[in-house]
Amino acid sequence: MLEEMKKRVYEANMDLPRYNLVKFTWGNVSEIDREKGLFVIKPSGVDYDKLKPEDMVVVDLEGNVVEGKYKPSSDTPTHVELYKAFEKIGGIVHTHSTWATSFAQAGKDIICYGTTHADSIYGTIPCSRNLTKEEIESAYELNTGKVIIETFKDRDYVATPAVLCKNHGSFAWGENAKKAVYNAVVLEEVAKMAVLTKIINNEVEEAPKSIQDKHYNRKHGKNAYYGNKVEV
Amino acid sequence: MLEEMKKRVYEANMDLPRYNLVKFTWGNVSEIDREKGLFVIKPSGVDYDKLKPEDMVVVDLEGNVVEGKYKPSSDTPTHVELYKAFEKIGGIVHTHSTWATSFAQAGKDIICYGTTHADSIYGTIPCSRNLTKEEIESAYELNTGKVIIETFKDRDYVATPAVLCKNHGSFAWGENAKKAVYNAVVLEEVAKMAVLTKIINNEVEEAPKSIQDKHYNRKHGKNAYYGNKVEV
Amino acid sequence: MLEEMKKRVYEANMDLPRYNLVKFTWGNVSEIDREKGLFVIKPSGVDYDKLKPEDMVVVDLEGNVVEGKYKPSSDTPTHVELYKAFEKIGGIVHTHSTWATSFAQAGKDIICYGTTHADSIYGTIPCSRNLTKEEIESAYELNTGKVIIETFKDRDYVATPAVLCKNHGSFAWGENAKKAVYNAVVLEEVAKMAVLTKIINNEVEEAPKSIQDKHYNRKHGKNAYYGNKVEV
Amino acid sequence: MLEEMKKRVYEANMDLPRYNLVKFTWGNVSEIDREKGLFVIKPSGVDYDKLKPEDMVVVDLEGNVVEGKYKPSSDTPTHVELYKAFEKIGGIVHTHSTWATSFAQAGKDIICYGTTHADSIYGTIPCSRNLTKEEIESAYELNTGKVIIETFKDRDYVATPAVLCKNHGSFAWGENAKKAVYNAVVLEEVAKMAVLTKIINNEVEEAPKSIQDKHYNRKHGKNAYYGNKVEV
Repeated sequence: MLEEMKKRVYEANMDLPRYNLVKFTWGNVSEIDREKGLFVIKPSGVDYDKLKPEDMVVVDLEGNVVEGKYKPSSDTPTHVELYKAFEKIGGIVHTHSTWATSFAQAGKDIICYGTTHADSIYGTIPCSRNLTKEEIESAYELNTGKVIIETFKDRDYVATPAVLCKNHGSFAWGENAKKAVYNAVVLEEVAKMAVLTKIINNEVEEAPKSIQDKHYNRKHGKNAYYGNKVEV
Repeated sequence: MLEEMKKRVYEANMDLPRYNLVKFTWGNVSEIDREKGLFVIKPSGVDYDKLKPEDMVVVDLEGNVVEGKYKPSSDTPTHVELYKAFEKIGGIVHTHSTWATSFAQAGKDIICYGTTHADSIYGTIPCSRNLTKEEIESAYELNTGKVIIETFKDRDYVATPAVLCKNHGSFAWGENAKKAVYNAVVLEEVAKMAVLTKIINNEVEEAPKSIQDKHYNRKHGKNAYYGNKVEV
Repeated sequence: MLEEMKKRVYEANMDLPRYNLVKFTWGNVSEIDREKGLFVIKPSGVDYDKLKPEDMVVVDLEGNVVEGKYKPSSDTPTHVELYKAFEKIGGIVHTHSTWATSFAQAGKDIICYGTTHADSIYGTIPCSRNLTKEEIESAYELNTGKVIIETFKDRDYVATPAVLCKNHGSFAWGENAKKAVYNAVVLEEVAKMAVLTKIINNEVEEAPKSIQDKHYNRKHGKNAYYGNKVEV
Repeated sequence: MLEEMKKRVYEANMDLPRYNLVKFTWGNVSEIDREKGLFVIKPSGVDYDKLKPEDMVVVDLEGNVVEGKYKPSSDTPTHVELYKAFEKIGGIVHTHSTWATSFAQAGKDIICYGTTHADSIYGTIPCSRNLTKEEIESAYELNTGKVIIETFKDRDYVATPAVLCKNHGSFAWGENAKKAVYNAVVLEEVAKMAVLTKIINNEVEEAPKSIQDKHYNRKHGKNAYYGNKVEV
């Protein structure tokens, strides 16, 4: 069932330690088949060096396991909420990558200071509000998803495919699992650069809107002219 | 004697350079057999690239070498004190990992700013007091153990399995050698994140108690629901 | 056509991830044949792990593709402008390397604080002005080149072979592609050291002119005495 | 001639990129045969990936090349001065390692904040004064040596085997080439920790003398009890 997708999701999960985004099992990637209404996600708490494509778990949009010998990631209810609300996305990744997580712990948005950010993520990467005690104690992972969705109620989740979860970590997404991981790498790198930029110049302001627009649009949308027709 | 444990302790010691927690011989891991009252520890000052499982040293709870061609780690008396006082632990690791050691040198506790910390270590990671001149000059390594124990007199050493030794380095522990090393990796990562978090937001406060409790409890205790029944 | 140069440019491009100057496809290197008036450059947006020497694109000094199955790097018009204005250079590299890019985002020059910098790059590494909205919207990459040239109107581009592009990234150059990458490595390292130097001593001033001159001149010019006659 | 020493010096030079202390050719190691009054040093400006044991250059204590097809390191006169003044040392290393060099650029000593430092280097690691314009322009590398010696006129160069050269880089030394590199690794690590320690606690003070003495003496001198009789 969804064997090709399992391989892709497996590879995307293995990219997390490759790109130095996770230690141990501290991350998970999923990808959805919109027609079937099913997504494939990493099992919970299995070491990366033991993980195999066939260990991936198939889950439906109510969070039920449809196939798989393992329990799915404990963050599965967050993935469910995001897939239901963000209908144009095809893949989701959660990590505790060092610099992005430090922004999440600090409770600060990541301002766009340059084109490395603007090339892939449009505008400020928001940090969500804290969950309330009730939200945490009732259905924590589901409510994590709801608070992310709330954070994007006046934002374009396609143009800004990443969020910081207060005191926790980050989620990023994209048209498929691989692109979601790509965005998580961008997120971590621009988080690091944002810290360094502020250290170098404490008075620094957001990059001018015109250069943000230029770089985002030369890679995205109908007038994009960056890249060749080879796979991302 | 204790051949399987020697292999495990050897592997756990080799994990220290793998996880970038030590340079040269600046660390040591041990594991205890509670029934026999014996523990296995790395020899003192032997290069990691020359270390073999059979080089591990067997020591009793009075610090006597029971088997082994080498002297045990010079920190052996600290391990003895900790095994005697912390009866529920099965493995201990000592490192000079960069970020945790910087907290130890700064004489500051590591506050819990997020779930990366709360997932594995409950609450603040304490920094011990300085040893007195007398404690240093009489039985330094033994007194290092005693001061750690004093630091935990009103703390739960199972829930908070790590400590910073003032001006020195860190000790972490767990149910076995491997889990102790896991906790040392967590310690180093949350130390790094804590520095970055404060740089990003100098006014940052401890994460809310509710999210700390949630993350710690979803991985520990009788209501834990994280992970699958595969080895950690 | 230019097969040897394609191999060199390919190798120089592959050095970017090797020296940790780029992630994904975020960089490009070119080298020029001054007699033929043609340069070889990386194709746009092709993954480094799929790149082959024969994928390199040959471009003339009006920016026309002379040979190649792929589109050249989207930054090609910047390379064209620099080759036309800086007649003594033979290779150009563009990256978003972390520390140099953070200076570019901060809009700050990199002061020469020591001999690591002075050995390879004479004096301050300038940060260009922002492009105007009009410059961005009309011919962005060409105007990026023009603004770099403007930044060097009172500077010696041979002695100072690097520039920071405001809110963007960096360009470095040299007598060939390999030397351009060498200078990009120096740029990234001295950017990192400059941040750390200021953290250690916020009052620090530029290194004395005499030591800057000494180190630059012992490696460059007719009285150079550093190195052996083996290839750089 | 001195074939075994050439191999050791070659290996010690290759350790510089292995321990991430240098980029390109920015470092050099030498070792001396005190009976013969000759030392072996890396050739100048030869890439590490092309270096071979037989490329090492043999030099006498007046700085004359006794054997070798290449010019010796341009820093050879500094090595000569140090070997002549510091009669108990057997190996010297020069690097531009990132964190130590940042202290040199900042013109600040490295205070001893903990046992990682005290285990190998006794007390403060001094930063030398600037060379005068005359010292730079006449015999720069020789005067670099003289200024280091001046920096140690009231210090014990055996107990404190490292120095920061203002606006430049560092030298470290030891009983042989390998031990000199070991001390250079320690220097870089304690430089990094010292920066982080100050960031964590801006009021931090030097570690108590008693713990510095304890750690230094448990590894050095006639009452040392650290380590086993296997090679360092």
